[in-house]
Amino acid sequence: MSIAETYFPNEPAGPELKTPVPGPASKAKLEELSTVFDTKAVSFVTDYYNSIGNYICDADGNKLLDSYCQISSIALGYNNPELLKTAHSEEMAVALCNRPALACFPSTDYYDILKEGLLSVAPEGLNRVCTAHTGSDANEMAFKAALMYQANKQRGGKSFTDEELSSVMENKLPGTSDMVILSFEKAFHGRLFGSLSTTRSKAIHKLDIPAFDWPKAPFPALKYPLDKYEAENKEEEERCLKALDEIIANYPTKVAAVIVEPVQSEGGDNHASAAFFQGIRAITKKHDVIMIIDEVQTGGGGSGKMWLHQHYDVVPDIMTFSKKMQNAGFFFSEEGLAGDQPFRQFNTWCGDPSKALIAKTIIEQIKANDLLKNTAETGDYLYNKLESISLKFPEKMLNLRGKGRGFFIAFDLTSGATRNQLLAECKALGLNIGGCGDQGVRLRLALVFGVKHADILADIVEKAFAKL
Amino acid sequence: MSIAETYFPNEPAGPELKTPVPGPASKAKLEELSTVFDTKAVSFVTDYYNSIGNYICDADGNKLLDSYCQISSIALGYNNPELLKTAHSEEMAVALCNRPALACFPSTDYYDILKEGLLSVAPEGLNRVCTAHTGSDANEMAFKAALMYQANKQRGGKSFTDEELSSVMENKLPGTSDMVILSFEKAFHGRLFGSLSTTRSKAIHKLDIPAFDWPKAPFPALKYPLDKYEAENKEEEERCLKALDEIIANYPTKVAAVIVEPVQSEGGDNHASAAFFQGIRAITKKHDVIMIIDEVQTGGGGSGKMWLHQHYDVVPDIMTFSKKMQNAGFFFSEEGLAGDQPFRQFNTWCGDPSKALIAKTIIEQIKANDLLKNTAETGDYLYNKLESISLKFPEKMLNLRGKGRGFFIAFDLTSGATRNQLLAECKALGLNIGGCGDQGVRLRLALVFGVKHADILADIVEKAFAKL
Repeated sequence: MSIAETYFPNEPAGPELKTPVPGPASKAKLEELSTVFDTKAVSFVTDYYNSIGNYICDADGNKLLDSYCQISSIALGYNNPELLKTAHSEEMAVALCNRPALACFPSTDYYDILKEGLLSVAPEGLNRVCTAHTGSDANEMAFKAALMYQANKQRGGKSFTDEELSSVMENKLPGTSDMVILSFEKAFHGRLFGSLSTTRSKAIHKLDIPAFDWPKAPFPALKYPLDKYEAENKEEEERCLKALDEIIANYPTKVAAVIVEPVQSEGGDNHASAAFFQGIRAITKKHDVIMIIDEVQTGGGGSGKMWLHQHYDVVPDIMTFSKKMQNAGFFFSEEGLAGDQPFRQFNTWCGDPSKALIAKTIIEQIKANDLLKNTAETGDYLYNKLESISLKFPEKMLNLRGKGRGFFIAFDLTSGATRNQLLAECKALGLNIGGCGDQGVRLRLALVFGVKHADILADIVEKAFAKL
Repeated sequence: MSIAETYFPNEPAGPELKTPVPGPASKAKLEELSTVFDTKAVSFVTDYYNSIGNYICDADGNKLLDSYCQISSIALGYNNPELLKTAHSEEMAVALCNRPALACFPSTDYYDILKEGLLSVAPEGLNRVCTAHTGSDANEMAFKAALMYQANKQRGGKSFTDEELSSVMENKLPGTSDMVILSFEKAFHGRLFGSLSTTRSKAIHKLDIPAFDWPKAPFPALKYPLDKYEAENKEEEERCLKALDEIIANYPTKVAAVIVEPVQSEGGDNHASAAFFQGIRAITKKHDVIMIIDEVQTGGGGSGKMWLHQHYDVVPDIMTFSKKMQNAGFFFSEEGLAGDQPFRQFNTWCGDPSKALIAKTIIEQIKANDLLKNTAETGDYLYNKLESISLKFPEKMLNLRGKGRGFFIAFDLTSGATRNQLLAECKALGLNIGGCGDQGVRLRLALVFGVKHADILADIVEKAFAKL
């Protein structure tokens, strides 16, 4: 029995379409909601009560195979019975009704929840955790950890000067810092003011919002298929690493941290090799720069490993997470990154035990059902099917990528317009699917997606390409 | 029967102390937790299973009357039975197991949850809502709303220029904005990079973190008792308003928004009069500046009104909330503040239906049991008791404030050291209580705090002052 059959005996055998999507019920609900809530980006109104496993159900009762999964944030499928058990538990009720200020009044069971949950899958070398609320929040807390660490180091154990203490209240140097966070071209690290300054995905994400004048380095633009362009891709990665090294060395102020996604997701599912990430690690070590790996979208098992960077044999100083874990935060490598004094790395809640309980169950289920093996193997199976399709439509389906990276599979079309057309055709055939970058399509499957779902997905994608 | 007796028949009759706080069990748990999580700010480890009503229970079984309530974020007391019902409901389980990307795939019941919950207590004139994750996040989303609104207005309906589209990817003008957000001295609006730039409470909150060079205006330093210093306080407020008007008029770039707390909380529980807030409204209208009222700490019923600014007869453009509501976000006045295009004011989750369900129950309970009347009346009762104490210790207990503001009561000591000593004495007598500003003490009671709790609190505070 497949994993999905075990969890979801009543999962549909395939998409069930009753109306166009969005249908009349979705549209009516949307009109109502739009009077009070911004709905300009809504795809369809969703019936979460009747969504199940890999199928998302809309307000009209249409059931679509979901390869987008709430922007990569559903780990165990809809209404997973084990997660429902946790949701109904006494621990959950107490966590929901008594949300603690964790940094002041942590709960008696928080250590066990972290230890049995998040910390049990902490990547090598990063054995401490700071919990947060969203991916953007986790990244900004990681920036603050790096900035305070570097400032303390420069200060050499001395206390703050009077000038620092007074100037910071005016948002001026030297109390405020001129250190910077470096990110890569096409990166996406969030939408708050600090994280948005490191985001370089699309203009629409950034326009009209003040930003810190922080540096960016080029990210490799690899050519596909990889085996054909081995030498060129190596050269491209070396070019980018050389640029990174030079930017850090020559930047007028200290680069406190470099942040990088193991696969640039929003920016177009841009992959790079293990050597590239190892190169970043070497350069950041050389210049005493904190290396932050942002696993907000890539983490949580979708790549066939718990964290995608574990494919690269590299140990960062900090790794951030959110989305599929449902609980955001960052793992880190040494106590200096937790801040030297109380109330510096601090906020009211510092996380949420109800989300830590959800994360714990997701992690327990990943282990109990070897879901990483599923994502690795089903990912390979699906990649091969898509490769066959790409050979049938070599002019339309470009740059298939993500081989050996589980479900982190993507491909390009020839333009944004054809990409959007493909997404619409897929939806009309019962597949919910998402784009990325300017003309990319990305798969963001739940960890319970199996071979039978892969067959359906590939069949729909092939039919959709045939219609273009 | 009092409200607390109705909800919590087993609430203790008073504090129950078995060990010093923190006791041996708290200390052992803390040592364990500190190996993986930052515990430098921990007061004691808390047993949320055995906390009840207005009493917080620690790992040693000590039960303290809680006047701090998780930094002002417990509305209905610990383990409120009505909240537990919601936590155990089917709606909650479905919300927890299927967390949606609300801006793309909103749930069929989100409109009803908002309408019966948060929107049913929307302040006058602000009938739309944007949901968020924390107070800092809500404030930064409000800043973005104001910035996009002002930029659109300046652009006069024209689309983005090529120069804007390219420069923004380099974090440069004109795509990036040089508009600013103005805040007040001693304000606290959060700790992310944008919100921290508007926070002016304490150096330790800001040191070593890059900040936007945004302006601040003076906030009135009122003298107490208010009836004695009427003329001086009026003059002080007029001085601050004049400064605000001049800063906005003369600032080299556009002030997009002014953000203000109706009572500055972290910064020392600094109050101002209705006339002062009406003055801000007039000045922001005159200069076409968005007025944001930050009710993150003050909102949710603790002031005797749902939102503290409702004491002032003023209608802002945006009001942010979080903490006691458990669900963060902002109410706003016109559709232009929701952004002109999809995916501008956007993030993965855009809120959390599980938190919206909690907020809905809290709001329903506030209405069902007229908890605003309780906070108003019990607040007056408690204020009078504290006023008697302040007359007994006129040299030690200074600037009692918050008359007629429900539970938003605070007072000062003569120094930070004596303040900390008072907090410790109170804790030793079974009262969990918090400081604010440099030498202030603030009460942040749950809405179910009654006359009998006020008697106990006042008794402990008096004993603690006697020991100083």
